[in-house]
Amino acid sequence: METVLRSRSREVVISIDRPFVIIGERINPTGRKVLAAEMTAGVMDRVRADAIAQVEAGAQMLDVNAGVPGIDEPALLVAAIQAVSEVTDVPICIDSSVIEALEAALAVYQGKALVNSVTAEDERMDRILPIVKKYGAAVIGMSNDETGITMVPQERVEIARRIIDRARYYGIPPEDVVIDPIAMTVAADPQAGVITLETMRLIKEQLGNNMTCGASNVSFGLPDRPIVNAAFFSVAMHAGLTCAITNPLVPEVRKAVLASDLLLGHDEYAMRWISTFRQERKKAAAVEPVTR
Amino acid sequence: METVLRSRSREVVISIDRPFVIIGERINPTGRKVLAAEMTAGVMDRVRADAIAQVEAGAQMLDVNAGVPGIDEPALLVAAIQAVSEVTDVPICIDSSVIEALEAALAVYQGKALVNSVTAEDERMDRILPIVKKYGAAVIGMSNDETGITMVPQERVEIARRIIDRARYYGIPPEDVVIDPIAMTVAADPQAGVITLETMRLIKEQLGNNMTCGASNVSFGLPDRPIVNAAFFSVAMHAGLTCAITNPLVPEVRKAVLASDLLLGHDEYAMRWISTFRQERKKAAAVEPVTR
Repeated sequence: METVLRSRSREVVISIDRPFVIIGERINPTGRKVLAAEMTAGVMDRVRADAIAQVEAGAQMLDVNAGVPGIDEPALLVAAIQAVSEVTDVPICIDSSVIEALEAALAVYQGKALVNSVTAEDERMDRILPIVKKYGAAVIGMSNDETGITMVPQERVEIARRIIDRARYYGIPPEDVVIDPIAMTVAADPQAGVITLETMRLIKEQLGNNMTCGASNVSFGLPDRPIVNAAFFSVAMHAGLTCAITNPLVPEVRKAVLASDLLLGHDEYAMRWISTFRQERKKAAAVEPVTR
Repeated sequence: METVLRSRSREVVISIDRPFVIIGERINPTGRKVLAAEMTAGVMDRVRADAIAQVEAGAQMLDVNAGVPGIDEPALLVAAIQAVSEVTDVPICIDSSVIEALEAALAVYQGKALVNSVTAEDERMDRILPIVKKYGAAVIGMSNDETGITMVPQERVEIARRIIDRARYYGIPPEDVVIDPIAMTVAADPQAGVITLETMRLIKEQLGNNMTCGASNVSFGLPDRPIVNAAFFSVAMHAGLTCAITNPLVPEVRKAVLASDLLLGHDEYAMRWISTFRQERKKAAAVEPVTR
């Protein structure tokens, strides 16, 4: 199953048969006070810089979130997406819990965006999915509903199936629903990782949809988080994860994704692995031209 | 299925339901000129130091190889194992292509060793397996035979099955045959990783035996090998790998194993992950008490 996203000039295909797609997560004011203040003031320099840096570090798409409390979020989200589009041409993941913001962003976006996200809650599905259809977008479906998050993998699959069915009802094909099987922190529940991985395996086997994940949740509260996240990417990619909203500026994560692509047969003759290594060497040499 | 190995005083259990077992690979003169010269001269100080260092770094077992060309390998292997036994009490993996060396080592070893290794070649099986049985040891079965290494996963499974059947014929139970599904370098063949992982999945599903692997083969010829190896451990553990002969002194590998154990539900409340992190912090503090 292929999920195709587009900007005005570029196309990204998410598929189990292709290299993993990193969706850069940095353009998000949650927990970033300086960015939040700047965005509120309409200053988009940092948004642009974050967009450029993430694409340079390997992000094939960018998540854009403008969720500053008390702000006119539809207007701010539109402005942030416009700022991003000025400096990069990668497709966008429109990230908001405010439906009016999603719609405003979709209305101005020139391309096929990924909407982040809808749950299996009836009221959310019936409001968000028609908008996704109207603008010809794709959508992330979270495997939880009104009752919360189940810890039974097969139940998460059924919840995902409900979103896919409802999307079909509204005219959205299954390939345009990317499932988030939900990763929870292993520090709190030793079985959290196993449950997420088993959900991925079942979704791959029974549904075949592409999958994304807020991967860094797994390591919450632990030391050495980048290494736990890196290992999670490797095991999750083997279980069927095909994209993730994450920070490509964390070298451990980016390299784990590249190495796993290589091991899973998505990097012929290791060309991407080797060229990434060479670029890094060049950058390092440029920083320290004499002492090395 | 549980493979139980023993030294005089310690027991190690290899199982898909338990933490991954690292078998330290360092005590091997192949490609280590200084070690080879010392071992030839009967000087075992480095063997002892390597044994201690690997156990401190997390090896639950140690591979011992004395394959110096032209040497009396049975005598040297026995001496090396005795040196290792003086300083550690972890079970041993007896590593030799010389059958007389395997037998000499098994004859003196006090415990239940793992023999490294037998292939599915008739002549090798019929000489090695009776010795393994005679000394009550376990054995690593390599998934290749007289015809070489097949690139068809199901054929590798059938070759493994032949070893398990022949072992049973000689009185060795299936749980004492640890299969090596064979990892080859991805730089030479883009499908090498996929084939090994699929073989692991099939062995887990169809046979259920424990599996080991010479994991560092996958990254041969590539830059940044420890990171490729680390990612390989994560995906392979998810596919069913339960132990590996590797170097625990490479921090990337050791941490990938610990993090993957955590994600696969083998580290309750992340206690091993957190305690390892604390030990490292303590060591770092001990090295640089003032400047930090």
